[in-house]
Amino acid sequence: MNSELHHVVVVGAGFGGLELVRALGKAPVRVTLIDQRNHHLFQPLLYQVATTSLATSEIAWPIRHLVRHEKAVTTLLATVTGVDKANKCVVLDDGDTIAYDTLVLATGARHSYFGRDEWEQFAPGLKTLEDATTIRRHVLRAFEQAERETDAEARNALLTFVIIGGGPTGVELAGTIAELAHATLRADFRNIDTRDTKVVLVEAGDRILAAFRPDLSAYAKRALERLGVTVELGHAVSSCNADGVVFGGRHLAARNIIWAAGVAASPAAQWLGAEADRAGRAIVEDDLTVAGHPDIFVIGDTAQVKRADGRPVPGIAPAAKQAGRHVAATLKARLAGNDAKRPFVYKHQGDLATIGKRAAVIDFGRISFTGWPAWWLWGIAHIFFLIGLRNRLAVAMNWLWIYATGQRSARLITQGRQPSSP
Amino acid sequence: MNSELHHVVVVGAGFGGLELVRALGKAPVRVTLIDQRNHHLFQPLLYQVATTSLATSEIAWPIRHLVRHEKAVTTLLATVTGVDKANKCVVLDDGDTIAYDTLVLATGARHSYFGRDEWEQFAPGLKTLEDATTIRRHVLRAFEQAERETDAEARNALLTFVIIGGGPTGVELAGTIAELAHATLRADFRNIDTRDTKVVLVEAGDRILAAFRPDLSAYAKRALERLGVTVELGHAVSSCNADGVVFGGRHLAARNIIWAAGVAASPAAQWLGAEADRAGRAIVEDDLTVAGHPDIFVIGDTAQVKRADGRPVPGIAPAAKQAGRHVAATLKARLAGNDAKRPFVYKHQGDLATIGKRAAVIDFGRISFTGWPAWWLWGIAHIFFLIGLRNRLAVAMNWLWIYATGQRSARLITQGRQPSSP
Repeated sequence: MNSELHHVVVVGAGFGGLELVRALGKAPVRVTLIDQRNHHLFQPLLYQVATTSLATSEIAWPIRHLVRHEKAVTTLLATVTGVDKANKCVVLDDGDTIAYDTLVLATGARHSYFGRDEWEQFAPGLKTLEDATTIRRHVLRAFEQAERETDAEARNALLTFVIIGGGPTGVELAGTIAELAHATLRADFRNIDTRDTKVVLVEAGDRILAAFRPDLSAYAKRALERLGVTVELGHAVSSCNADGVVFGGRHLAARNIIWAAGVAASPAAQWLGAEADRAGRAIVEDDLTVAGHPDIFVIGDTAQVKRADGRPVPGIAPAAKQAGRHVAATLKARLAGNDAKRPFVYKHQGDLATIGKRAAVIDFGRISFTGWPAWWLWGIAHIFFLIGLRNRLAVAMNWLWIYATGQRSARLITQGRQPSSP
Repeated sequence: MNSELHHVVVVGAGFGGLELVRALGKAPVRVTLIDQRNHHLFQPLLYQVATTSLATSEIAWPIRHLVRHEKAVTTLLATVTGVDKANKCVVLDDGDTIAYDTLVLATGARHSYFGRDEWEQFAPGLKTLEDATTIRRHVLRAFEQAERETDAEARNALLTFVIIGGGPTGVELAGTIAELAHATLRADFRNIDTRDTKVVLVEAGDRILAAFRPDLSAYAKRALERLGVTVELGHAVSSCNADGVVFGGRHLAARNIIWAAGVAASPAAQWLGAEADRAGRAIVEDDLTVAGHPDIFVIGDTAQVKRADGRPVPGIAPAAKQAGRHVAATLKARLAGNDAKRPFVYKHQGDLATIGKRAAVIDFGRISFTGWPAWWLWGIAHIFFLIGLRNRLAVAMNWLWIYATGQRSARLITQGRQPSSP
């Protein structure tokens, strides 16, 4: 590798970081791509791992394999703990430093409990593969425990699932858990009827899918209710514990709570000492650089960017990808001697969410779809965005299988408490 | 469920327990099937999860789903800690007891370190899905660390893999890791050449695959060597630690050690206070019952059974299945009023092992196969024995993909140390 070349260090190989690296293509730079995980994760389908529809390896790929043909890119599995702006280097957890000419932070976000971190043990969130297998284990174990439970009240609590947060993740989890209980698992138990399962979606706002048009929110609510989900609007959760949740002044006994409500940015803003919004996102200039540091970009869920009309750019995959491409174009222009500031213009392509295996809502602004045409469009779009022919085939086969048989293939309780014998 | 019916309690839903439950079919009994895991595991392909070829959910299925059509069967996820022969019940870890009329223990085996349990932390074994993802994590992380390591000696130790034990599991692991290093990962690294990886298979006996004919052992050794594996025969390992292994008086620096050498039975014999062999297996009568207890059967890897010629029945899936069918037939005969002792006669169908993705050895006694015809026969046989059309399709697709492209789909480092930052 020619060490005379301009060195771009990218931290985070999510949608933004990966798109940036690919868009740099044959630009005369060398790139170091750092991530604390060895895999890029297709987060929009993570809820399907949590609900036994897909295997972990169907939505995650080794980062270094994805960029194996970009000979200018070195991939490092390492954890960044800080940025030394004065010496222009990032600091790793083992004390090593990596010097940069240009730094791009694309480190994403994690769920936030709005200062109530003690809720996490009772209401796990969903951001990583481990989060997904943890939720899968909790969900499946609840039915197993209910099968052995003789006390009716305790059994009802085991068969009550509360999902907190009515965004796409909460809606998708609620719909899929309802289908799992009411269809997939029905024939497998002897002492319980899994159709007695209660699935409750709690949303503090006055409608679910708040990013969508109000009529689509109303449709999604009806579609969830048809699947047997109870939708509770206008209630913030005031307490979570091992026995259940409190919302709207009443206590609901539930042994299964999933958190899909809040998001907090990674500490990129702290590393930089940059101004941040309440969710911890670095507030960046309109060209995605940090004020006073044209050599440092922050993109994706860990940055706060405004659209022309003042609304924030949403924390979704297409926005991160557009930002990655924008930074690549800016760097290429700079290398060609053009240092003019290039503002990022976000193009919103639409919002999508599925409700179970036969309905979805798609909001393209003027045009919208609901019902099974939306479900098929959603499925085809997601298969298109998956990486690699093999994964597209595998996921398509899984979905068609679930569609035709109602059976899900990844009903595994793994990790967690290890059986002690033998 | 009619509680007047004869109650058969089966502990363990491996090959033996599951085959027994299925073979009971419509017999006038009620059955309780207890396992500490929620899934039946196809152990012969576990090494393919450890070496990134298959996903966990492709070789494991929820037990209760597999027996959903057997309405007489209740499945329990529970851990058995003992047997109360006087009161005819099994004891669970939460203190609950389950009464039986007939008890079948099919609790399998785990790896054994021959009294050197402190080796386990350095040389993990392979019996459960968690074992497989642990080994997968270690193997993949070694290459990641080598990519960052600047000291040549430390890098060589990271790129040295020692597999202890030359049975089918050891041979299959060694062959697949060699392929992973020399082909799959080759294009993905910048600072190391993964073809420098050393894979060493250490076997204490004078040949690998000792259960096979000597000429097939010799073929397997040559096939491994063609893949770049060093086979060390006649050396027992005398020490394992974080730096490497000692065998034949010399120390080999290696940061990756996998244990495929010894097996210890589950504590079924201890639960029963029954006579056991050195590996902890209960020594049973020729009808698979425990001496003095015609109502208690022990089958599979946790029992020691002799063949007519005095050799032990091997610890392989077909033997466990045959024993399961034999116990089912005995129970049916007894229910029909025939209490005559029915000795178990094991029929050995053959031995199979693969070496990488193009060679295998199959020993049917008089007939044997090697090379690619054996590999295809092995593959077709294993797909046939997988459960469910969906898994057969998925595994077949995976194998054809690996065969055609050399790429493996499950290269995920998961669990283990959790990244601390969001």
